[in-house]
Amino acid sequence: MALASLRRKALSSDLSTALSARFGERFSTAAAVREHHGKDASYHPAMPPDAVVFAETTAEVAETVKLCAAAKVPVIPFGTGTGLEGNILALEGGVTVDLSRMNRILRVSAGDLDCTVEAGVTRKQLNQHLRDTGLFFPVDPGADASLGGMAATRASGTNAVRYGTMRENVLALTVVLADGRVIRTSRRARKSAAGYDLTRLFVGSEGTLGVITEVSLRLYGIPEAIRAACCAFPGIEQAVETVVATIQAGVPVARIELIDAVTMDAVNRYSKLDYKVAPTLMFEFHGTERGVEEQVEQVRSFASERGGSAFRWAAGHEERNKLWQARHDAYFATLALRPGCEGWATDVCVPISRLPECIVETERDLAQSGLMAPIVGHAGDGNFHLVFLLDPKNPDEFKRAERVNARMVERAIAMDGTCTGEHGVGVGKAEFLVAEHGEALSVMRALKRALDPDNIMNPGKILSS
Amino acid sequence: MALASLRRKALSSDLSTALSARFGERFSTAAAVREHHGKDASYHPAMPPDAVVFAETTAEVAETVKLCAAAKVPVIPFGTGTGLEGNILALEGGVTVDLSRMNRILRVSAGDLDCTVEAGVTRKQLNQHLRDTGLFFPVDPGADASLGGMAATRASGTNAVRYGTMRENVLALTVVLADGRVIRTSRRARKSAAGYDLTRLFVGSEGTLGVITEVSLRLYGIPEAIRAACCAFPGIEQAVETVVATIQAGVPVARIELIDAVTMDAVNRYSKLDYKVAPTLMFEFHGTERGVEEQVEQVRSFASERGGSAFRWAAGHEERNKLWQARHDAYFATLALRPGCEGWATDVCVPISRLPECIVETERDLAQSGLMAPIVGHAGDGNFHLVFLLDPKNPDEFKRAERVNARMVERAIAMDGTCTGEHGVGVGKAEFLVAEHGEALSVMRALKRALDPDNIMNPGKILSS
Repeated sequence: MALASLRRKALSSDLSTALSARFGERFSTAAAVREHHGKDASYHPAMPPDAVVFAETTAEVAETVKLCAAAKVPVIPFGTGTGLEGNILALEGGVTVDLSRMNRILRVSAGDLDCTVEAGVTRKQLNQHLRDTGLFFPVDPGADASLGGMAATRASGTNAVRYGTMRENVLALTVVLADGRVIRTSRRARKSAAGYDLTRLFVGSEGTLGVITEVSLRLYGIPEAIRAACCAFPGIEQAVETVVATIQAGVPVARIELIDAVTMDAVNRYSKLDYKVAPTLMFEFHGTERGVEEQVEQVRSFASERGGSAFRWAAGHEERNKLWQARHDAYFATLALRPGCEGWATDVCVPISRLPECIVETERDLAQSGLMAPIVGHAGDGNFHLVFLLDPKNPDEFKRAERVNARMVERAIAMDGTCTGEHGVGVGKAEFLVAEHGEALSVMRALKRALDPDNIMNPGKILSS
Repeated sequence: MALASLRRKALSSDLSTALSARFGERFSTAAAVREHHGKDASYHPAMPPDAVVFAETTAEVAETVKLCAAAKVPVIPFGTGTGLEGNILALEGGVTVDLSRMNRILRVSAGDLDCTVEAGVTRKQLNQHLRDTGLFFPVDPGADASLGGMAATRASGTNAVRYGTMRENVLALTVVLADGRVIRTSRRARKSAAGYDLTRLFVGSEGTLGVITEVSLRLYGIPEAIRAACCAFPGIEQAVETVVATIQAGVPVARIELIDAVTMDAVNRYSKLDYKVAPTLMFEFHGTERGVEEQVEQVRSFASERGGSAFRWAAGHEERNKLWQARHDAYFATLALRPGCEGWATDVCVPISRLPECIVETERDLAQSGLMAPIVGHAGDGNFHLVFLLDPKNPDEFKRAERVNARMVERAIAMDGTCTGEHGVGVGKAEFLVAEHGEALSVMRALKRALDPDNIMNPGKILSS
């Protein structure tokens, strides 16, 4: 983890006093609160901030940032803490701005298929709110993450193959800049050619350029027909090749998820299901009744040509939800395979034609490492995760995992792919950005310096200091 | 046109000598060449550069930029010169880099549904090249523009309602920066969370942050079924309301274009067609045979509920091409309505629910102005154009057009829309960016300063100096 010297220093008492005076009980330096905000859902060791502010409005975030900016103290935005690359670790201390109380849904325009929410609203909360409108928001990382956090990490999930990632689904953002000024990145028109695309600049910037406090999102009509099915394959290669054929044929599948046999077994146990223990694809089809039928026919023929089993349907809304919740819980299910282990989810993404080769080579490499690491993937996007299950007391396992991961990233980049499809850079991927971006990394540094000259916004993330 | 003082100065003889020595006959200061590169397809008065370099490789563009940077001389990229907002005018003189000879298609990956082309390749050239692959590239501004230019202005056109704009369809760019360094903005994976979205930063930057020399693009399979039809309406309001109903219902129309009666008449004359002279929607439906049938049924019912005529089908490939070429030529068709006139195409875009109100109020305003300005629009995106037909010898007409346009932009922004849906800012929309972006404009300025500190990259565009 090539992070430069961490200039961690205690919060000045002036800043503490000012924040405490302003926020009262919503300012905390309690150990439990700091610890909770210093750890995400990943293997990265905790690094708590010096203090936490629970903000309730954009103006309060701006006030906090202004006070921190004056003292040159780091500001780290925090949504649900469900990130996987240490994106919220307080590497240099500072003040974490917890946005979970900014959980108001500000506007839903059914007629424009869009809405605006505060950054702390979670994806499930939004979909719950939308349930009587006939609309839904599709982007679904495993966790019930905040929409601000999802925008900040350019999250995606199982529906991205059809509906895109946060990159495609954020219409506009409200952002508090490093000096406390507040901007809105764009208007709400579906398209615009009016200057630089600030929305896309802040989507995926992981709090390093500003704090996202409001998010305008695209919504979609709930399709007339939704059908979900699982299909088991003799080997993982055949499953992946079915994905490739489906994507190349342009079938508009809503979800096409890859799960290896080990994960299927783990998911069965964890979620009390009884799917066949084999490399499996989980599909969801969206459309009109007839459109879904057509999609199913096409995909079924691709699968059966490659030895796929009969489709096992998840009948009805409830069974479907159960299936996808099980898929979303796959990370926890695999952790349960090795009690007491630490999970490390890798995240490469490659052009779809290279996916079979990338997975096969990675599996070979993994077998040689002697490590246990089930595979799951948003295969339709060319994105997959190994989940290393590591003994926290055995540093040698971590070293071996590091080597497998580094080789996998190298392989993905050689295939014109990326070191992270959806988890973000955080601290875990920073060392790979030179190989991935080359000279372009200097442009990212120039942007960072321009918008955050004192490097107070989530320092050490994306661009190691 | 609130452009600050133009510090135009002649090219130094040192720079001329160096460029001439390097590029020989591909460096020109001939008046005819300069004039050709100083005018686009719009009403903006010509402003020729001091010299033109015809570059053939990225390395040559980089060399040119380095020489200009050393002399602090402006660099203006030029594709086909078909822009509509003066995006290529040499406001401060300098060297135009003509990219039309960079017209090689570098790679087509049918398996990944993508390709890489040099910036000078035009959209028609690409689709011609793809014709045996079963793939196509959908983004189609009226002109046969270069793909580099289309990326630079974040172009869209008639297919954007289904396939998105250049924002959604550019995967990666090769860019020559203001100091001559060359970067690639991204890898080719369909999604990535690896740092700042440089691709989207350069898409729409109009040459003000660097020169785009290569473009990687998404491609799509040619649908099994394609059908195109026209539908006439009793009034423009009913036509627009049919669009709104179609979009709100989530019907995946590929094209849904609005043409008013005056334009329909002009198009009939110009393209030798005989469509009914009435406010008209032009549709194209893409999908499977059954899918297209379903879409047609839905849209037909929305139209007939609002007084729409029976659909008149453009049967077969050839007739369909004729229809869309006629649509693309609508600008020239309307110009022919008033011989000797100058055309001024406006370009607002609003959230779809506000489109009927925006168009109705604009028409009222226009009627009061006494000007002639047919309306066409990519109505499915909420985007429409008035094309003012102005007597170049009558400055009062230009003044009245300016007022109508300013009010229309104000109206669009008040509806949370934008001053430009697809033409870009160039010099024509710079004055409206404060109203549209407020404080966010300062962020754009900071980005510009960071990447082009000497303001040599297409100076005066987007951000007036």
